[in-house]
Amino acid sequence: MALGRLVGAVLRARGPGPAVRTLRLTHSCVDPAVGLTDEQKEFQKMAFDFASNELAPHMAEWDQKETFPVETMRKAARLGFGGIYVQPDVGGSGLSRLDTSIIFEALSTGCVSTTAYISIHNMCVWMIDTFGSQEQRQQHCPVLCNMERFASYCLTEPGSGSDAASLLTTAKLEGDHYILNGSKAFISGGGDTDLYVVMCRTGDKGPKGISCLLVERGTSGMSFGKKEKKVNDSVMRFLAGLSSCSLGAAYASILLARDHLKVRRQFGEPLANSQYLQFRLAEMATGLLAARLMVRNAASALQAGREDAVALCSMAKLFATDECFTICNQALQMHGGYGYLKDYAVQQFVRDIRVHQILEGTNEVMRMLISRNLLQD
Amino acid sequence: MALGRLVGAVLRARGPGPAVRTLRLTHSCVDPAVGLTDEQKEFQKMAFDFASNELAPHMAEWDQKETFPVETMRKAARLGFGGIYVQPDVGGSGLSRLDTSIIFEALSTGCVSTTAYISIHNMCVWMIDTFGSQEQRQQHCPVLCNMERFASYCLTEPGSGSDAASLLTTAKLEGDHYILNGSKAFISGGGDTDLYVVMCRTGDKGPKGISCLLVERGTSGMSFGKKEKKVNDSVMRFLAGLSSCSLGAAYASILLARDHLKVRRQFGEPLANSQYLQFRLAEMATGLLAARLMVRNAASALQAGREDAVALCSMAKLFATDECFTICNQALQMHGGYGYLKDYAVQQFVRDIRVHQILEGTNEVMRMLISRNLLQD
Amino acid sequence: MALGRLVGAVLRARGPGPAVRTLRLTHSCVDPAVGLTDEQKEFQKMAFDFASNELAPHMAEWDQKETFPVETMRKAARLGFGGIYVQPDVGGSGLSRLDTSIIFEALSTGCVSTTAYISIHNMCVWMIDTFGSQEQRQQHCPVLCNMERFASYCLTEPGSGSDAASLLTTAKLEGDHYILNGSKAFISGGGDTDLYVVMCRTGDKGPKGISCLLVERGTSGMSFGKKEKKVNDSVMRFLAGLSSCSLGAAYASILLARDHLKVRRQFGEPLANSQYLQFRLAEMATGLLAARLMVRNAASALQAGREDAVALCSMAKLFATDECFTICNQALQMHGGYGYLKDYAVQQFVRDIRVHQILEGTNEVMRMLISRNLLQD
Amino acid sequence: MALGRLVGAVLRARGPGPAVRTLRLTHSCVDPAVGLTDEQKEFQKMAFDFASNELAPHMAEWDQKETFPVETMRKAARLGFGGIYVQPDVGGSGLSRLDTSIIFEALSTGCVSTTAYISIHNMCVWMIDTFGSQEQRQQHCPVLCNMERFASYCLTEPGSGSDAASLLTTAKLEGDHYILNGSKAFISGGGDTDLYVVMCRTGDKGPKGISCLLVERGTSGMSFGKKEKKVNDSVMRFLAGLSSCSLGAAYASILLARDHLKVRRQFGEPLANSQYLQFRLAEMATGLLAARLMVRNAASALQAGREDAVALCSMAKLFATDECFTICNQALQMHGGYGYLKDYAVQQFVRDIRVHQILEGTNEVMRMLISRNLLQD
Repeated sequence: MALGRLVGAVLRARGPGPAVRTLRLTHSCVDPAVGLTDEQKEFQKMAFDFASNELAPHMAEWDQKETFPVETMRKAARLGFGGIYVQPDVGGSGLSRLDTSIIFEALSTGCVSTTAYISIHNMCVWMIDTFGSQEQRQQHCPVLCNMERFASYCLTEPGSGSDAASLLTTAKLEGDHYILNGSKAFISGGGDTDLYVVMCRTGDKGPKGISCLLVERGTSGMSFGKKEKKVNDSVMRFLAGLSSCSLGAAYASILLARDHLKVRRQFGEPLANSQYLQFRLAEMATGLLAARLMVRNAASALQAGREDAVALCSMAKLFATDECFTICNQALQMHGGYGYLKDYAVQQFVRDIRVHQILEGTNEVMRMLISRNLLQD
Repeated sequence: MALGRLVGAVLRARGPGPAVRTLRLTHSCVDPAVGLTDEQKEFQKMAFDFASNELAPHMAEWDQKETFPVETMRKAARLGFGGIYVQPDVGGSGLSRLDTSIIFEALSTGCVSTTAYISIHNMCVWMIDTFGSQEQRQQHCPVLCNMERFASYCLTEPGSGSDAASLLTTAKLEGDHYILNGSKAFISGGGDTDLYVVMCRTGDKGPKGISCLLVERGTSGMSFGKKEKKVNDSVMRFLAGLSSCSLGAAYASILLARDHLKVRRQFGEPLANSQYLQFRLAEMATGLLAARLMVRNAASALQAGREDAVALCSMAKLFATDECFTICNQALQMHGGYGYLKDYAVQQFVRDIRVHQILEGTNEVMRMLISRNLLQD
Repeated sequence: MALGRLVGAVLRARGPGPAVRTLRLTHSCVDPAVGLTDEQKEFQKMAFDFASNELAPHMAEWDQKETFPVETMRKAARLGFGGIYVQPDVGGSGLSRLDTSIIFEALSTGCVSTTAYISIHNMCVWMIDTFGSQEQRQQHCPVLCNMERFASYCLTEPGSGSDAASLLTTAKLEGDHYILNGSKAFISGGGDTDLYVVMCRTGDKGPKGISCLLVERGTSGMSFGKKEKKVNDSVMRFLAGLSSCSLGAAYASILLARDHLKVRRQFGEPLANSQYLQFRLAEMATGLLAARLMVRNAASALQAGREDAVALCSMAKLFATDECFTICNQALQMHGGYGYLKDYAVQQFVRDIRVHQILEGTNEVMRMLISRNLLQD
Repeated sequence: MALGRLVGAVLRARGPGPAVRTLRLTHSCVDPAVGLTDEQKEFQKMAFDFASNELAPHMAEWDQKETFPVETMRKAARLGFGGIYVQPDVGGSGLSRLDTSIIFEALSTGCVSTTAYISIHNMCVWMIDTFGSQEQRQQHCPVLCNMERFASYCLTEPGSGSDAASLLTTAKLEGDHYILNGSKAFISGGGDTDLYVVMCRTGDKGPKGISCLLVERGTSGMSFGKKEKKVNDSVMRFLAGLSSCSLGAAYASILLARDHLKVRRQFGEPLANSQYLQFRLAEMATGLLAARLMVRNAASALQAGREDAVALCSMAKLFATDECFTICNQALQMHGGYGYLKDYAVQQFVRDIRVHQILEGTNEVMRMLISRNLLQD
């Protein structure tokens, strides 16, 4: 990174950063446990502990080496995080969308990228659980829930952006096989995954003609599911995942900024005495709470199958990913030049969540979906 | 208003505006009924109906003539809106803070100023109900709940702004009377009210020395309550009122903007076809939902007596009043020059809620309270 | 105003506001004299003095009574402000667009509305001077330059907003008269003016078919100019006027806020000691300087007849009117509740310049014009 | 980078990006040549050509390999860019601050990091030229102007941030040598440079006790200048450099976004047809022009030695680095997922200029300096 060129000298001069990172600030107005049931608090604590112990210490290294941390994710799966909202009869945890959001927010404080992948994996398993045949469910879900195998989601195409309805990849039935024809981009997990959930066109133009095929890695042509259902709303269901990861990054960034303000001195006193920075911190916390309420509200609407869930998820994705990027970026500013050192996680949070404003429906597409809901008669 | 000078010609040329104003957009993602219980939906509907029939038609006229609409408010009191969260044994409706917020949001769509006063009146009655002696409760609450009499709240002093802790007005006990000495500013309802709830100093410096006295209008010196309790947190409890009024104004402004975009044509097609305006409308709706969730979340924390309620109310006040002003102001922009005509309510909403960012604790004071919560150890 | 209802009590309790208002802060980084020639500084000082002595003391009263201050404007005309960039042979001052912007910024610190009208009057005279016949020039310009008569500009129509190209008002030649048919809205000066510069359609659809007719008040049908030229770019030339008025309001608001911060105490010290408010003041000053540079840059491009002048004027109008509204609104916030008292000019500045984001091409139309320039090949 | 993990698949699937990058858009309202003299246009063109041919093709590779491109910079020095505002008698180009800003903006469109270093190198040479002895000037300036040797600037200390006045590094004269004691951080160019311009304390506490020593790399203890002058305002003089680099990045990002909008299709038409994106592009162009005017205005004030130059440079640094980051970040958003691919320069521009809001005086310190200017009596 170019910054490396500018700040090289100091990197060599400094020792390592703080070994242990505080991931929670209980009894404050941004504590994510507020308002939860005892059961929710329990698995939330489990997720925070996992983030502190298994993710945060490796977050920087995984980033530099572009690691896909297979063993760590399997540990997460042993806690039930491989199929959180998948039904228990195929190995899932059977929790709600709101529960899922709580877990992803907590995990993300340890590593956004890993949690973002886990959220996509969860969605793929859920799709098979929900839209697959009984045979597909039994075959794929258990080995995905325990993360023996890893799944990817293939929506975006090189020429079409976030515009799901204009997919060009087609699948045509020939005998008992589909012939899949097209190319996909932005495949999470890249070449490290085993099973691909591929959005493609089996019917007419427009959103109603879209199906979803399962494709195994490494088959000669490819293998695929025998039967598919219409799943054109599944993208929305996924958005809650990315949004929750943004929350975790913003929460962790606020805690990092708070610690920095308390420790670092300028003009003879701790930065925490600066009224301007105090007030900015207050704005960041306020934005985080608003984003969290939006995401949880959308998760509940999704769970309840409410008809306005698509609009509410779009609003939550737009608001949470924009606001949380602003929060992380402001936390970086509060760190001054030190925010750029590699042992300060805040710069990684900024980089990691920037793409959430773009992935799986840019925030411009979210605005489009929301305005349709508003302007309908 | 200066605008009057600029747009005088057109005012004379136009007929009256639309006689009936749509105050709700059910089945949209900004419908405030979403997620409520059946009972809540019922009194919400009652409040919306009252706003449509009794407030909205007079809103512009009351504004121009600076009317304090006594009879209309007594009608509202007959629906139980004079003491919404006051106990039933003294004439109150016994509802929760969340219920109260729902009602104030609905009423504000008809007239922000009137609702803002009603919210202050409600707080005064609640203070007497909660901190007053049994005798005071029986004497004052029933005639306030039915709005036979009207109450005002006297906090701000000419020299001290939103800084409750540095109040200069003092009350000293002489025999069975207090001698009250000081001056107050920004008294809602002004000279039209009958009973003043006056914050003053009976003890040491700082917030713990503050008491609250009841003062009747028109007594020679003044009358007062015999007994007082410490009420230094009552300001926070009031904030939910102002914030709810901001929500109503923003909701109504979004509906007005939506209607305008659908009707008004430019460059040969309805403004509603403008992608830019569609997307701005989506942002406005998203901001409103976030603000509403913040206010309702704070109201619930207040009701539950949670220790972080002060911080959550401060966050809700900061976020909701800022965001809702932005929404109303953007709705005004969408109306173009017509937003300034007196028969378009949107300009009145902008004016009426601007002061919510300042009243009863400026938003700068809110930032201070939030940052204290965050930076405490 | 609704605020009047809320703050009535304090209005009666307070004495009059500061009689003399500081309108300049020389030797600061926002001093508008910086970088000007000696001659420019001279007429700038003249304009500031006029603003202090003749406009500021009456600004509030004119606002309340909706006064069109004929005599005061004639005094301004005696200083050469009635036809600033009109040629001297017909009574104009023969100054440049940049000079004009400097004068309007200074005058606006005393009263935005009056200056906004003067800027429109100036444009009308300039149009006659530039596009009129020699006969029209000699007949109209002298009595307009000394403001014996007052001119108005009639562009907007009830059904078409800022979309000049789709004007519906038509003018058809019958013998030696034009028959003018249509209706106009948002006529500055309203019924107080004598001569109307009316944009209408004499040719084909689209911007090239638009002409400009002079219409006398009080003629039976109406009188009109004998000859017209195409003036479809004249709107842009006017924008610099409104933008300059926004600058003056923002500059004055910064000075008012600065004075208030120095005088008003909270939590035991002057507001000026609040780091947060200091930093916000710095942001306001920075925004003002950027806006001023944009307006002056556009004025110079206009004067030089550069081909990108339309885009540069659009950018200046968009940036300056948005930024200056933000500045005035933030200055209002800094005043707290006192910003709403009628003897504090800041609330009037906020109201007066809000409409600049809308008038004579909404800022949405500005964005359209700028993007066309950018996206052309 | 974490994004690498998410978008791995597509990176392997795509061919190389566009080989030639358009670095200018003449005849548009954002053309940086507008308003310049013919001489300025000439060296501006030279800088743009150098950026296109020598910098842009290597920008991505230098970033990944953290290269300090010695030979390329020596080529730049042959064009006179090694000592732009250094006097000609020691090898400098003798141009003004405004000229310098024009050159840095143009160079940055090819590579921000390299240009940022060149701007620091220029400042170091200028400091020796201005404050050094005749002997120091003759010894150091020629070999720095032709970039045979490279200079670094050492201000920030691990414990003090942007607070120049509280420097802890001391220099004590012992015989004919200074004993330099302290540590420095954020040294541009890191270990690749030959000569260090070190800010240190030779006198009392506070800004007036600060001197500047020259330190050779590789001396046993270290070598140093024999004589020093007070240079406490030199930091401000440097800011114009960083700000100009921000302008170049923003300008290049707007061009990249424009090209992308014209080429990329979504929902069946080019993104350039999206009104929302058109309007955002207009806002970006407007912000860039305002930032450019601020930087050029500050550069002229600096050149003229005006007393408000510190405040004007602070305003320019605050405004330009904030606004240009917003522009680059919005350009990234317009690219959608493709903005993250390594052959799209826009993501590198975002990363490279983010640190400009922090380096050499955070933007919080800028606000402090501006507010001091405003609040002085």
